[in-house]
Amino acid sequence: MELKHAYRLLNTGASVLVSAAHAGRRDVMACAWNMALDFSPAKVAVCLDKASFTRELLEASGSFAIGVPCVAQADLVFTVGSISGRELPGQDKFAAFGIAHHAASVIDAPLVAGCIGWLECRLIPEPHLQQAHDLFIGEAVAAWVDERAFEGGKFRPLDDTPPAWRTPHHLGAGNFVVPGAQLKARAQTSG
Amino acid sequence: MELKHAYRLLNTGASVLVSAAHAGRRDVMACAWNMALDFSPAKVAVCLDKASFTRELLEASGSFAIGVPCVAQADLVFTVGSISGRELPGQDKFAAFGIAHHAASVIDAPLVAGCIGWLECRLIPEPHLQQAHDLFIGEAVAAWVDERAFEGGKFRPLDDTPPAWRTPHHLGAGNFVVPGAQLKARAQTSG
Repeated sequence: MELKHAYRLLNTGASVLVSAAHAGRRDVMACAWNMALDFSPAKVAVCLDKASFTRELLEASGSFAIGVPCVAQADLVFTVGSISGRELPGQDKFAAFGIAHHAASVIDAPLVAGCIGWLECRLIPEPHLQQAHDLFIGEAVAAWVDERAFEGGKFRPLDDTPPAWRTPHHLGAGNFVVPGAQLKARAQTSG
Repeated sequence: MELKHAYRLLNTGASVLVSAAHAGRRDVMACAWNMALDFSPAKVAVCLDKASFTRELLEASGSFAIGVPCVAQADLVFTVGSISGRELPGQDKFAAFGIAHHAASVIDAPLVAGCIGWLECRLIPEPHLQQAHDLFIGEAVAAWVDERAFEGGKFRPLDDTPPAWRTPHHLGAGNFVVPGAQLKARAQTSG
């Protein structure tokens, strides 16, 4: 997909998967605290806890991938968000949970299969921000979508999107809300 | 509401209203690019375009309010997100569009009436971040909710929430998706 439309994958605020790889190790985690940050260049921001192994790999490699999951992957999102890659000695989450994945085109991080969209991001180093606020800024250098959910630079109309292909939005503790209606707002006129 | 639960208002990624006031002037804008950043202290991040008047007032006052709107306010969200406070000479958006509001308890920014939750935030100054990435970090110093939508530190179950009280999530160009289903994910076991 065109990078100028990448922000739209994050605009509705769904939880995402963040993955990273470095020196033969890899990890993936769930991230509800994410947002778009610019149109072009396409920038994104994610908040990653200091305890996460994904964060360590991201900092070492200077790159990360974002996967925008669908409802069919809700159990996977909850699972990789509930356990640290440090807690699986001798294997990683991809092996432990049989997570299918593809190679990225530009970066080392694996792309989780079955998502509706992916952003390959280069970290824009901001050491103070990373340390003080756990906030990481990336520039998307490649973006991919599954056209069954997202086509022509935008999400398909909700009525054309089967429930399993919609985005899970995390309430907490594994509870998610899922879009069920779409509306078009009207601009009000000033008095 | 307790500040330790403030992040949950932003967790599902709905669009929010950001308001600010300084020296007798006030403004409000829509912001799809927002996220929680910490539990306690409750920190948030919002991305605000350099052209926005709300941003100027926020920088001058060192504080801002976040309102989490409901579907009944979708036209309002779209309207205040489509016009700049600079384009209304002689009046502000609150007067021009008849936006009901309340005084905040700690800060100067007005709270838009009819939202389901509000965060009063003090800006954590990060000049480089604000200039380079249009990103503003705040600490919530007070938080309020309408218990018809959010009670006991979390959103009410979706089935108990009338459609008009649910949160609009912006696709773009005034098109929003609205939660229509809730699911509970199950943790997978490692192989």
